[in-house]
This record gives sequence, structure tokens and C-alpha cells, in this order.
Amino acid sequence: MAAEIVNPLSESATEGAPEEPFDPAFALHRGGKMAIQATVPVRDKDDLSLAYTPGVAKVCTAIAEQPELVHDYTWKSQVVAVVTDGTAVLGLGDIGPEASLPVMEGKAILFKQFGGVDAVPIALATTDTDEIVDTVVRLAPSFGGVNLEDISAPRCFEIERKLQERLDIPVFHDDQHGTAIVTLAALRNAAKLTGRTLGDLRAVISGAGAAGVAIAKFLLSAGIGDVCVADRKGVVSSDREDLTDVKREIAGLTNKAGLTGSLETALAGADVFIGVSGGTVPEAAVAAMAKDAFVFAMANPNPEVHPDVAHKYAAVVATGRSDYPNQINNVLAFPGIFAGALQVRASRITEGMKIAAADAIAGVVGDELSADCVIPSPFDDRVAPAVAAAVAAAARAEGVARR
Amino acid sequence: MAAEIVNPLSESATEGAPEEPFDPAFALHRGGKMAIQATVPVRDKDDLSLAYTPGVAKVCTAIAEQPELVHDYTWKSQVVAVVTDGTAVLGLGDIGPEASLPVMEGKAILFKQFGGVDAVPIALATTDTDEIVDTVVRLAPSFGGVNLEDISAPRCFEIERKLQERLDIPVFHDDQHGTAIVTLAALRNAAKLTGRTLGDLRAVISGAGAAGVAIAKFLLSAGIGDVCVADRKGVVSSDREDLTDVKREIAGLTNKAGLTGSLETALAGADVFIGVSGGTVPEAAVAAMAKDAFVFAMANPNPEVHPDVAHKYAAVVATGRSDYPNQINNVLAFPGIFAGALQVRASRITEGMKIAAADAIAGVVGDELSADCVIPSPFDDRVAPAVAAAVAAAARAEGVARR
Repeated sequence: MAAEIVNPLSESATEGAPEEPFDPAFALHRGGKMAIQATVPVRDKDDLSLAYTPGVAKVCTAIAEQPELVHDYTWKSQVVAVVTDGTAVLGLGDIGPEASLPVMEGKAILFKQFGGVDAVPIALATTDTDEIVDTVVRLAPSFGGVNLEDISAPRCFEIERKLQERLDIPVFHDDQHGTAIVTLAALRNAAKLTGRTLGDLRAVISGAGAAGVAIAKFLLSAGIGDVCVADRKGVVSSDREDLTDVKREIAGLTNKAGLTGSLETALAGADVFIGVSGGTVPEAAVAAMAKDAFVFAMANPNPEVHPDVAHKYAAVVATGRSDYPNQINNVLAFPGIFAGALQVRASRITEGMKIAAADAIAGVVGDELSADCVIPSPFDDRVAPAVAAAVAAAARAEGVARR
Repeated sequence: MAAEIVNPLSESATEGAPEEPFDPAFALHRGGKMAIQATVPVRDKDDLSLAYTPGVAKVCTAIAEQPELVHDYTWKSQVVAVVTDGTAVLGLGDIGPEASLPVMEGKAILFKQFGGVDAVPIALATTDTDEIVDTVVRLAPSFGGVNLEDISAPRCFEIERKLQERLDIPVFHDDQHGTAIVTLAALRNAAKLTGRTLGDLRAVISGAGAAGVAIAKFLLSAGIGDVCVADRKGVVSSDREDLTDVKREIAGLTNKAGLTGSLETALAGADVFIGVSGGTVPEAAVAAMAKDAFVFAMANPNPEVHPDVAHKYAAVVATGRSDYPNQINNVLAFPGIFAGALQVRASRITEGMKIAAADAIAGVVGDELSADCVIPSPFDDRVAPAVAAAVAAAARAEGVARR
């Protein structure tokens, strides 16, 4: 999620020391953050003969004869695998599968708390694209969906694509789509607040990793006026010769204005800044944006533009931080998206389902819409049910629902 | 478990029909039998900042620096993967991964209920030995142990061996070792009851699959006088030319007496019959066993020798069924074994740990020892703690404990 884009040199990423005995984060994490719970009794012989042998044999036989019954008689359709290879964990980078587990457990309990969805952390001991794909394909019978997490770009794109091609359950890389969905939700409301439509806006995205690429594509499919993406070397434009395949594709899809050069140059006159990169944008570049601009500076814990600076020039300011208004937090999206997709046994999560999710998130704000409230609080308990209902309806409308 | 050896043609394996709306087994299985539970709160901003970003980053960093901390600060050391490929499910055979899930969920909730161990069903969409091994190796960072389940012989032997060679967490094929451990426990007490030692006994095992092979090897390491194994073609003896590699090994290890020919021939004068095969043993063969024989007829739901028949000739009769005395049920073993192994972070489950488990199970019977009580009830809540303590102590004694 956007809230995970932590600068590796920042305080929060480095101050933790294993010896620190009284740190509340270590105290809370001791023994992990989750457990399995039986939802049926196994206290006596009669219980056991239904939940286990011999009673279970009937259920197994029924599923062998009618495979779709697995959704009815097991937890498959309520459980998501949270899969990582530990290569892009928060802003900490490639810290390996074991060290990524606390994040995956955190994700799993957010799935449960916010969406009522069960989730199991699966941190893989491989970073090879094909091995990851093969492994997840083999795991898939046990799960109703796959949430990819903290896998570095550009491998994350290929892994997601190949998995979705091979599986008939939803595959969703949250660092891409979760961030894009919540960003679109905020952008819809910011546009509404300032009397504009998405088509009126030109956006500049700082960051060409998983989140930046996904946001660019998603804003285009939602109908944004123009969008360009900048990496460390400046605007990702077709004239550059240092582009990866993914960035070359982005260059072809984006940047109608044909901008080249630095991020700062691109920001001149732009309506929207979307930061998913870390780094800092000079105040002068923010000052040169269009009137009533939106600054979504989502790097964590240090936004690319400090909110106090952004407020001098922008009509709407959002960050990834919980201590400022308008927090762009993926937890607004992924629990409801999977809850909705699982509810109708969707085979995939389509563009239409993602747009429905963004609109549902935006819609929850309703009459509370203001410059400091373009997006609901992560703890607004209306969000996940609204997202789930919208996603389920969109899945049916798009023909990917199986019930 | 032994209780799972169901004859595929039996009533319990075939009577289930998916349309049957009021069957209590289907009703109980609807929606699955398990769920995830958060063990820490995520109700507000402060909770989230500890359990998730930014607080979690400290914990991740600490594990990246000191990998063994993963055991302290995640659920790894309390969670077991229950892995199957769906090829030998109960007595139903190769029904595939999806249809095996109700059994794996059942196993998972037994782990929790009896051993306090979390367990996650992983039913794999491959039956290739190397693919299974590679897949489980890649999953291993997320788990404290691997319980292999319902994987057909002889692949199960190679899979378990290769996995244990590559992993530093316990790998335990319950159909082999769980059954062997509970069988040894019952045999120890039966011997005690009749004033004999294990070295005084000659046993005949009907069945050369996972359970039969494992029981034979385990009884040998526990010091049985003699043991031979019979498959459908009779005694597995070195003169046979139709033996698989595994059976050839068994022929070399067992059968000091040099028996050849049918199961019935081998039973003449034998002290112990151990049935893990299904099929039926003629009454005359039981009658020809030694005085004070033990008949452990564990096929489910139809024991190889009906208990009423066995009682005519044998001093001790055990089955896999819950409605007769002396139920040989793996649930007496696996929850405590993994609880003990995880408690001391054992790197493997050694022969000594398995023998300690069998002795602990036998020990719980204590003064209640009788012909109808050579093994505790599966619901005796003294068993799992006794097994866990014995296994943990044995792991320390054998140098495979990491704390």
C-alpha cells in the first residue's frame, strides 16, 4: 500500500534494534499476530466423526464428483494467499522472505479485520519469476484468491500476468492496484470538489515502479485527460533509450503532451502530482503547478512534498500518513475487493471491478466532501461493505462471477 | 491416520451425494471448518501503526539482521503446513487436491484442538515428486513444520526424505510415522499387560504402503523380535522378483524368520497382526496365531478381522474405529509431536523423538491398563501435553533442538 512506501534511510526503517526489550512494536509482535481457529466443534467422538473420518469422506467424494462444490464445503472461497518473495518490503527493499513475514501477517489481519476475509502469509524462498509462478499455481487449489505483495518491479508485472493467465481465481498485486484504486478514489472527489472532471486533469506521477506504472494505466482507463510518469532520470518518454520494456510501454501509453526532461519541468502547469517514489520535490516546482492543483505525496514516512508546503499552493493535499488528513491507504481497497470477488467467486479482478471499487470508496465520503476529506478514514466501517458490493456487482456485470 | 484407511467401496465412502440437503456432514462442512483470527488489535490508528506500518518495519529489519528472530516475532514457529497432493486420501485414493481439502482442514483443526498448533491446508496441483519437493521448499520460510498427508506410496517416501534433507524444520509424513507411533504405543502396553517385552514378539503387517513400511521400520528400531510385511501377493521376501525399491529395502530389513508365501502362512504362530491394508483375514489364520496374540486390525470402516472374531483368539484387540475399545488414532500423536518439536524449534523429528512420543502415549494409560485399554482415548487431554514434553526433551537430548 502507499502507506508502505518507507524511505529506507528514515527513522522508522532503521531505529528498530532487536535488543530493545521495551519497544512496543516488538512486544506486540512476540509470537506473531495471528492464529487458526476451528469454526466447528471437535470435542467428542460424534464431532470427530462428522468433521473428520468417516463423515468427511462423503464431502470429499462429492467434491471429486462436482469440483465446484469445493467452494461450498471448504474454506477455499474465503481464504486468500498473501504471497511475497520479500524483494520490495515496505521501503526496506529486498530483505528476504523471513523478514517480510511480519508485514504479510499484518496484511493478513487487515484482510480479516476490515473485510472478514481469511488470509495466509506465504513468503517464498525464491525470487525467480517462473519459480514463483509455478509455485503459486500449485498452491492455488487451496485458495480463493492470490494477493501479491511487496514483489519488486518489473518482475511483479510479469508474475501477476502469468499467474492470472494460468489461474481461474483472482490474482491482485496490491502494491499496484490497491494504490491505484485508492488514488483514483481521492482524485474523483478532489475533482468533484473543485468542479472538474477527470478528463480535465493532467497528472504527473513521480515513480515508475509497481505503484507508479499501475496508477498511470488505471487513471488512463478511468479517463484522465493526460498523465505522465517520471523516474529518477525524468519523464518516461519515448525518446529515451534507457527504458525497460515496462517503461517503454508506459511511454507509449502516457504523455499525450509529449513532455521530456525533468519531473520539475513536467509539473509546470500540471493539475495533479502523485508521488510514489520517495525523494523530494522542490517547492518551486509545486508553486508552478496549475491553479487548484492536487498534491498526493504518498511516500512514507517522508512525503515528497511536505503537507505544509503543499497547502501553500494546492487545493487538495493527500499523503500516505495517518497523522495528516486524506490518507491514501490501501486498506480502503483490498479487503473489500477480495470480499466482493470471493462472494461471487470471481475468476479475476477486471478493470471494471477496480473502477467500481474506486467509485465506491469515493462515494462513501458523500456530503462530508471537503479539501480535508476527499477520501474516507481507513477506519470508516462503511467502506469495505460498499467496496465489496460494488465489486461483486461489477463482476456479475462483466461476466467473471460464478454465482 | 489409521482411522483414515477407508475401504473405497464401503458405505461411508460412497453414500454421500451432493444433493443430499439434510446430511449432517454436509451441513457441518458448509463454508469450511476453519478461519484466521487476529491475535492483536487493529481497531485504530495506534494499533495499526504498531501491527503494520510504520511499527512493523522495525521488526522486519531486526529479522533481516538476525534471521532466527523470525521464530520470536512471527507465527512461523507455531504454524504447520498440512501438505497433500490428493493422491491417497482416506481410502478414496487419488481424488485430487480440491477434493482432499475437507480432510486437510479436518487435520488442521485437530492440530489446533489437540495440540494448540496452528495449521494451514496446502493441497497441491501437482503429483510430480520433484515439483512437490521444490514447492514445499519454497513455502518453508512461512512455516515451522511440514506435515505431509495422504500422499501415495512410494512417492511419499522420497518426498519426505528429500524435503528433510533440504529443510531445517521438521518434515513428518503422518500416514507413516503417526500410525507407527500410535501402533508402538499400543504394542508396548499390550506386551506389558501380557508379561512380555517387544523383543519377545513376532509381528506380521498386512499392507506395504506408507503405513505398513513405516510401522515395520519403526518396530525394528524399537527392538521388536521379528516383523514381516505382506502385500497383496504375500510376504515381502528377498526371493520375490516383483518388488519395488522400497519393498526390496523392507525385505532386507525385516523377516528374520525367512518366511515366504501368503499372509495366512506368516500368521501361523505370530504374536501380532497389524492390519493397514483393508481386505479380510480368514478366521482360521487368526486362530493359528500364537497364544495371547494381539490383533490390531486398523482398516476403516471395515477392520481386516472383525473385533468379535478377533476376541475369540487374541489377548488384545485394537482397531481404527471409535466405536470399539483401543482405537489406534493418529490424533494421539501428531498434535503433541509438532507441539513439542515447535516448542524447542527442532530442525527435524528424529527416531528418538518418535519413540519418546510412543512411550509418552503408552505411559498415559498407567494403572488403567487392561485388554480394553492399551491406548488412551483420543479425547484424553493428558496425551498431547505428555507427548509434547517427551518430544521436546528427546529433541534436546538428540541435539536437534534450537532452544
